[in-house]
Amino acid sequence: MAQLQRLTIQASQLQQNQVLLTPQQKHYLLRVLRLQDGDEFISMDGMGKWWLTRLTADTAQILQPLTPKTELPLSITLMLALPKGNAFDDVVRYSTELGVSSILPVLSDRTLLNPSPQRLERWRRIAAEAAEQSERAFVPTILEPVVFNAALSEYINYQCYICQARGSYPHLINIINLPLKSIKEIVVAIGPEGGWTETEIATAILAKFQPVSLGDRILRAATAPIVALSLIAAACERVSLHPQVLD
Amino acid sequence: MAQLQRLTIQASQLQQNQVLLTPQQKHYLLRVLRLQDGDEFISMDGMGKWWLTRLTADTAQILQPLTPKTELPLSITLMLALPKGNAFDDVVRYSTELGVSSILPVLSDRTLLNPSPQRLERWRRIAAEAAEQSERAFVPTILEPVVFNAALSEYINYQCYICQARGSYPHLINIINLPLKSIKEIVVAIGPEGGWTETEIATAILAKFQPVSLGDRILRAATAPIVALSLIAAACERVSLHPQVLD
Repeated sequence: MAQLQRLTIQASQLQQNQVLLTPQQKHYLLRVLRLQDGDEFISMDGMGKWWLTRLTADTAQILQPLTPKTELPLSITLMLALPKGNAFDDVVRYSTELGVSSILPVLSDRTLLNPSPQRLERWRRIAAEAAEQSERAFVPTILEPVVFNAALSEYINYQCYICQARGSYPHLINIINLPLKSIKEIVVAIGPEGGWTETEIATAILAKFQPVSLGDRILRAATAPIVALSLIAAACERVSLHPQVLD
Repeated sequence: MAQLQRLTIQASQLQQNQVLLTPQQKHYLLRVLRLQDGDEFISMDGMGKWWLTRLTADTAQILQPLTPKTELPLSITLMLALPKGNAFDDVVRYSTELGVSSILPVLSDRTLLNPSPQRLERWRRIAAEAAEQSERAFVPTILEPVVFNAALSEYINYQCYICQARGSYPHLINIINLPLKSIKEIVVAIGPEGGWTETEIATAILAKFQPVSLGDRILRAATAPIVALSLIAAACERVSLHPQVLD
């Protein structure tokens, strides 16, 4: 992949092989990135489509579609109890880099905050920036916050894990069995500072979430998602020693 | 929380409750770590056995065995080209949580900064705080910054990896073969923003560093160490499908 600058656009901005740039996007391309007329960049619609694009005086010309190689072969939803302070900003940035598809903030028994619409907008902006920087084709979706118990029932047909320290649960690395063609959607639930309550774990298990450990060290709520996503992404890219699991 | 330095020894160096130190180990303890007669440190055999040890004039006295449950069974040195801004603060915090033993800041071709002693002190404080928070038995050592090429020759007998994006190098997950009793010390080198130069990679390969990828996404310099350490720590805790690698 050429080291071209990237711009996230709306599908509605594409018309007749042109990208109709907003004033903000023009400012970004010309003033921030200092592109000049005739320079090329990548337009991404945030849903997996990329186009090589040439900047012209008034607009931007689509030259050809591109096929990004930076996406994982499955969809990962990170279900995350809101950590304290600004830690969610970091989680959004790191998770986007690591290939997450959606992030669902959940309100748990030990969660104090219900984020404002401004915070959600901020996370969406961070996700878009991080997707651009890490050359992803998708901008992860930041979903509206929901109550944990209500979220559980939404993912009945997914491969679901709930991470908890201080239990005697098996390590995620020993449980996850990828690449596996039959697994297309994974959900991984990470608790707040202090972990999930026993009731939450029990409810998740009833909803077919598998409780797992992320290792013997105690991780912060901001660190655990990065570890979980690193392991899942690497499992996708692992050369299987057992070719039959690919079938 | 004992903030003790660690030394990896061979089982054969243990005799009658003493560690028979090699001249190199004496040099390391006295000159590099600046320990003095009577100071305590941890002797590790690299296979999960640790001893509280007291340095004496001629040798080192075993005081008692230790049983850390949050420590990895091997020592990981993170060799990190200094990233921009305050990103190193985050790297120290996350790496400590993930079980790193030592962090060596290196000056690379694309590194601009040489950190002040105040910055080093700050990183040591962050490491101590993170070690306590994550309930580790030991505080990782933040070493004095060195030039990358000079650092390479210090780790000739270690299992060494150098991470680079945009190459066609094999994924770390496919290379690392743990738990493996013969591997006691791992070094993982992570480049600055923009990656290592081709010359640096070539020099590292000559010094027996194995070039590896951390996946198909482009990671920030602050994210790459977390991914690498997550994978190495998990590999240590993986239940082997092939028991023979333990022999």
